Amino acid sequence: MNRGSKQNKEIGNVECGVRNDSTLHTPNSTLQQFQIVHCDPSSQARVGKLRTAHGMIDTPCFMPCGTQGTVKALSSEELEILGAQILLSNAYHLYLRPGRDIFQKVRGLHAFMNWKGAILTDSGGFQIFSLAPLRKVADEGLSFRSHIDGLKQFVTPESIIEFQTMLGSDIMMVLDECIAYPSERKKAQEAMVRTHQWAARSKEEFRRITNDERQTTNKEQLLFGITQGGIYPDLRKESCDALMEIGFDGYAVGGLSVGEPKELLWGNAALCAERLPSDKPRYLMGVGTPQDILEGISLGIDLFDCVLPTRNGRNGQVFTSYGILNLKNACYAKEAHPIEEGCDCLACKRYSRAYLHHLLDAKEILGVRLTTLHNISFYLRLMKEARTAIAEKRFDAYKTQITQRVRRQR
Amino acid sequence: MNRGSKQNKEIGNVECGVRNDSTLHTPNSTLQQFQIVHCDPSSQARVGKLRTAHGMIDTPCFMPCGTQGTVKALSSEELEILGAQILLSNAYHLYLRPGRDIFQKVRGLHAFMNWKGAILTDSGGFQIFSLAPLRKVADEGLSFRSHIDGLKQFVTPESIIEFQTMLGSDIMMVLDECIAYPSERKKAQEAMVRTHQWAARSKEEFRRITNDERQTTNKEQLLFGITQGGIYPDLRKESCDALMEIGFDGYAVGGLSVGEPKELLWGNAALCAERLPSDKPRYLMGVGTPQDILEGISLGIDLFDCVLPTRNGRNGQVFTSYGILNLKNACYAKEAHPIEEGCDCLACKRYSRAYLHHLLDAKEILGVRLTTLHNISFYLRLMKEARTAIAEKRFDAYKTQITQRVRRQR
Repeated sequence: MNRGSKQNKEIGNVECGVRNDSTLHTPNSTLQQFQIVHCDPSSQARVGKLRTAHGMIDTPCFMPCGTQGTVKALSSEELEILGAQILLSNAYHLYLRPGRDIFQKVRGLHAFMNWKGAILTDSGGFQIFSLAPLRKVADEGLSFRSHIDGLKQFVTPESIIEFQTMLGSDIMMVLDECIAYPSERKKAQEAMVRTHQWAARSKEEFRRITNDERQTTNKEQLLFGITQGGIYPDLRKESCDALMEIGFDGYAVGGLSVGEPKELLWGNAALCAERLPSDKPRYLMGVGTPQDILEGISLGIDLFDCVLPTRNGRNGQVFTSYGILNLKNACYAKEAHPIEEGCDCLACKRYSRAYLHHLLDAKEILGVRLTTLHNISFYLRLMKEARTAIAEKRFDAYKTQITQRVRRQR
Repeated sequence: MNRGSKQNKEIGNVECGVRNDSTLHTPNSTLQQFQIVHCDPSSQARVGKLRTAHGMIDTPCFMPCGTQGTVKALSSEELEILGAQILLSNAYHLYLRPGRDIFQKVRGLHAFMNWKGAILTDSGGFQIFSLAPLRKVADEGLSFRSHIDGLKQFVTPESIIEFQTMLGSDIMMVLDECIAYPSERKKAQEAMVRTHQWAARSKEEFRRITNDERQTTNKEQLLFGITQGGIYPDLRKESCDALMEIGFDGYAVGGLSVGEPKELLWGNAALCAERLPSDKPRYLMGVGTPQDILEGISLGIDLFDCVLPTRNGRNGQVFTSYGILNLKNACYAKEAHPIEEGCDCLACKRYSRAYLHHLLDAKEILGVRLTTLHNISFYLRLMKEARTAIAEKRFDAYKTQITQRVRRQR
């Protein structure tokens, strides 16, 4: 049962001891799928490069959420300019709307949304389980009623894989069974066992489809498994091992950040990060605040996604190095300076807090466009700074600095 | 009473007989405020150049509506890229929100909304009169309750001018009394007389403020009068003459396109256009559809504004050379081609009808951004084509072609 953990350390040492900056300049084609180029000496943080058919992804990486095939309020051009390398989208949402047919017609999601970078599609397990009591789980699959039109739907691990190959996303996620917090151990275990069975079936379906060239939109698609097990450390360990046994291109930690206390989140995330293979990307799903992300990075997590920068932006909240501002507050109505001096996003380069306050107050679309733009810019810059700090062996100091700054202002 | 009409013809002949294309290349400083560079031989249509502190405006011109200091859903960068030379904003809206103080602080509306081009601010007379029964008119001014917070407000012709000098718009409109359609002749006459009195007071206040350099944000502001008189030709004539007597930098035809039959709209608009001086810009307020604008151009109108391209865009309706499409309709769900082939707006260059349909269906902000962008692009291109057609002495053929195309598709 200790296999994963041992493997980690060995590979970790090899990767971090041998690699140096010169690997950054190796032609893409000769690079491994995922390559670690820097390791932090005082934590598990690492800088890596993940190869996809739609470009190289620098990790640790934040993936803006484009649930319905669009990062809310932004265009794909703006995301390109911001330097986003990968977006997250959601198979469940796209399956219901616009539906299968259109993706067959336009040959995939990249073409549909005109996005040249990489895309990770979540399976939608989390969304379907959130529909309770409108869904019913069985070993075969999930039946539920669409949140759009109330019509009955049925998906299986296989159908979700098949749909994602049609979408042609660069990274597909398996269908998993997500449980709420709190959940009893028995329930957590049952969901975990089913998640493992579904993961094996997903891998099998993935193999079947990718062997048939006619069926693939994107020949370099990767498949990630998702660990479950709730807040129970022994289940989490078991889940990591079971998924590693099946074997995936990357591993996600699912079912955390769903309301549990922070110590349970970080205890279980750390356990998974340590146990999962260090030569594969690790993805902590749905996390989180800037501080959470830095915490995750220090545990060796490579990929993050969260609706905070987009959702909070639409509520008028903007992230800065000094904490969150709510631009709807009257105190910003006459401030002629930008959200954050030194930020090079369009919102900060061209508009004042006073103008943004006015736009939000008047419910003008441009207001939420600009706050969203700034927030995504902030998150992407945070990741870039974190990668630089890891490369320069000062990640711990960087993390402390950001965390303290934010605390001081609260 | 025939003075205006005579004057028109004389000046019209001089302008159109003497000027030629070479005036287009004269340095700005030596140009007159408004210069006519081409006249259509078969109608009153003309191509002109209107000088402002924020650039030259090619007329006939469509002014996108930025009522609250933003063209709904678009950024100022996008409007720049689309080639918009002038936007319309609204003193009434900006007076209530964000209010006077902020414009004093940031030195005007251009800086506030970061727009380098020209701005025309409407006085807000039309908006305040639309508040009935929440408003009360007296010779001194207008009392009303704010549509935002219900608080009592009182504005005078002078206070609206003073506020607009603070905004620093390139063209200010006088406060006028707008009547509904239908209105009895007596009511139309009373409103017209008050409009004239207010126009004289506005001019006087404008003179007073512009003589005091400390009070002006934009030293080259122009003041336009607004003719009223409802649908009564004799009142319309009287109104033109009264405003010309006071003397303005340009003249608007107000109070039309408010529900009256088309023949009353065009009869009165033609009458005003003919009577108003041809060496000053003429502005037909709140008009209209592409066909309406071409009709207005043929009467010698130079400036237009309308919420149609922005409002219809937000409802999923897009303008094309072949008529209006409602992209929310299911028939567009699988169309892989753009709104209009050959259109060089971002929406058409990068996105399919199917994607736009999906975005609108899912109520995604990017959907209304792209439809609005396309519609403004369509209107601006229409104006450019109309100017070229006038310059090439084939405006009538162009107008017929566009009108027939649209009809054929309906």
